Amino acid sequence: MDMFDNKETTGLENLGEFGLIGHLTKNIKLKHPGSLKGVGDDAAVLDFAGKKVLLSTDMLLEGIHFDLSYTPLKHLGYKAIQVNLSDICAMNGTPTQVTVSIGVSSKFPLEAIEELYDGIYIACEKYNVDLVGGDTTSSRQGLVISVSVLGYADEQDIAYRNTAQEGDLLCVSGDLGGAYVGLQLLEREKMIYLENPKIQPDLEGKDYIIERQLKPESRKDIVELLRAIGVKPTSMIDVSDGLASEILHICNQSNKGCNLYEEKIPIDPMTYDTAREFNLDPTICALSGGEDYELLFTVKQSDYDKLKNQPDISIIGHITEASAGRNLVSRTGNVHELKAQGWNAFKGE
Amino acid sequence: MDMFDNKETTGLENLGEFGLIGHLTKNIKLKHPGSLKGVGDDAAVLDFAGKKVLLSTDMLLEGIHFDLSYTPLKHLGYKAIQVNLSDICAMNGTPTQVTVSIGVSSKFPLEAIEELYDGIYIACEKYNVDLVGGDTTSSRQGLVISVSVLGYADEQDIAYRNTAQEGDLLCVSGDLGGAYVGLQLLEREKMIYLENPKIQPDLEGKDYIIERQLKPESRKDIVELLRAIGVKPTSMIDVSDGLASEILHICNQSNKGCNLYEEKIPIDPMTYDTAREFNLDPTICALSGGEDYELLFTVKQSDYDKLKNQPDISIIGHITEASAGRNLVSRTGNVHELKAQGWNAFKGE
Repeated sequence: MDMFDNKETTGLENLGEFGLIGHLTKNIKLKHPGSLKGVGDDAAVLDFAGKKVLLSTDMLLEGIHFDLSYTPLKHLGYKAIQVNLSDICAMNGTPTQVTVSIGVSSKFPLEAIEELYDGIYIACEKYNVDLVGGDTTSSRQGLVISVSVLGYADEQDIAYRNTAQEGDLLCVSGDLGGAYVGLQLLEREKMIYLENPKIQPDLEGKDYIIERQLKPESRKDIVELLRAIGVKPTSMIDVSDGLASEILHICNQSNKGCNLYEEKIPIDPMTYDTAREFNLDPTICALSGGEDYELLFTVKQSDYDKLKNQPDISIIGHITEASAGRNLVSRTGNVHELKAQGWNAFKGE
Repeated sequence: MDMFDNKETTGLENLGEFGLIGHLTKNIKLKHPGSLKGVGDDAAVLDFAGKKVLLSTDMLLEGIHFDLSYTPLKHLGYKAIQVNLSDICAMNGTPTQVTVSIGVSSKFPLEAIEELYDGIYIACEKYNVDLVGGDTTSSRQGLVISVSVLGYADEQDIAYRNTAQEGDLLCVSGDLGGAYVGLQLLEREKMIYLENPKIQPDLEGKDYIIERQLKPESRKDIVELLRAIGVKPTSMIDVSDGLASEILHICNQSNKGCNLYEEKIPIDPMTYDTAREFNLDPTICALSGGEDYELLFTVKQSDYDKLKNQPDISIIGHITEASAGRNLVSRTGNVHELKAQGWNAFKGE
């Protein structure tokens, strides 16, 4: 009864997540005049009578996106919402509503699910977002969380991925690599615990990077800041898969090149020091670690003066013509081709 | 590291799906003026500048909602969309966009996922709906599908669950129980196959009820028909958990009673005969089987003449005051209390 027993097949592991999405969606033709933007950006853009509605969705699976042995359920609920809000922020929009679907096995007591929803509601409250629907079902294996988010923006404010222009400045909010280094720390402590459950986790003084991993914040404040100082990003994306991967999305979809300067990449001292403890290159952690949920965006050069003194925004490079390539300029001045080595959802299985 | 080891806990199996949703969402306070209706109906109703946006979401998990041993992936994709479109129809709205998130293990070759998406696209095409986003990720175990759907309606057209009035006629589209009886047939053939793989499934002449289970259709046509004949339902819901459960939703949320007449419940002859083969009461199959995705609605008595000759709509009872109770009047004239024995997502684990 397996319909693929006698056919030549293509393994998903050869495609990767983006390849699979691209493959599956390449023949879509949008039919409604209101479907202004479908698959291919952080959120779909829909026209309902003049107002633009932003819609995005993300699914989190136990064992793939989170490990319950070190992820408190309240944090997980909080993060599930933030990950989605981040997609609306990445369109330069304002998130307004979410739906949450969960699949859960009966091994979870009610109190566990309440913890999860506590985190969900705290995130919704803090970001002024309404939970307006969802689905709850049993699951045979593991916890499944699927969130959809709606938001809005005026048409002229929406920032896509494919609209970066040559000469634009490449900017990023906050700092990078912390979520990945925090994950390494949690994984190490889990291993120690599994070997000897009497040893208590040693996370002393590492609050910042642990929070970056377990309790990220979407950068709605950056969207509001840019609006307040009169800067409209020429393109924008959130950093979920690592800086390199996101820059390449903007360059590929805008058909442009870039110069990214290693020395300009913002890395928190705790991220830096902890990466070194793990014999990791902090720059690689920023480029390929992912899950930082910062905003990566491009702005016109003429906006430089408005941004240069913003403490939470770093100018890390600029956009070039496509033929100049996508370059990482190292601290020593060497030029490397920028490559995405981000998390691949299908590798390692 | 298990935070519930030393606490008294409440098992999910005691709550059931509706209890859990109710419990988890009881403290929600909608904040946006645009969040007109959140949790508690088939879809959320959102106000974006005069137009009402309808949003709903449903998750399907392997081993819970579908069995891949007899569910072709193309049908599964089709059904995943229909189940969601049905929620928008149940608001008396028009579905316009969906997002689809899937979690899939690498045991599935690309061609399998293509089959799934073929079904998704066929459903979208047939119902004039755009797929505008989603998420694709790996899953450690089993296939996970989460769909969100957006639609719209003019405010005065939206049909809620809590607005049935005393004296209203209780109506249902199509026929009921077929999806459940079709499932019994598929399960029986699976058992026979597992005992002796050389025996081919015997589904000869059972196309209709097999299709009711594997390839349901949302009743967008009924929404359009009601509009065309000038009937505005006073309340509406789709039949996903069985007729009894849905009627009780309307009665409970409207604070009303009802009389439902067994002899008026529409049951297809093939459903009837096959139910009898399985020693099942066809009426119980209609009341408690679920997954028919027909529309259950109430209308004013003054609309009777507009509906009485519609071949695809049955008038099955009427709404009473709450104190009269929720009654099933049997063919022999006996009155029973109407009870929901529908599928409970947490039972049997």
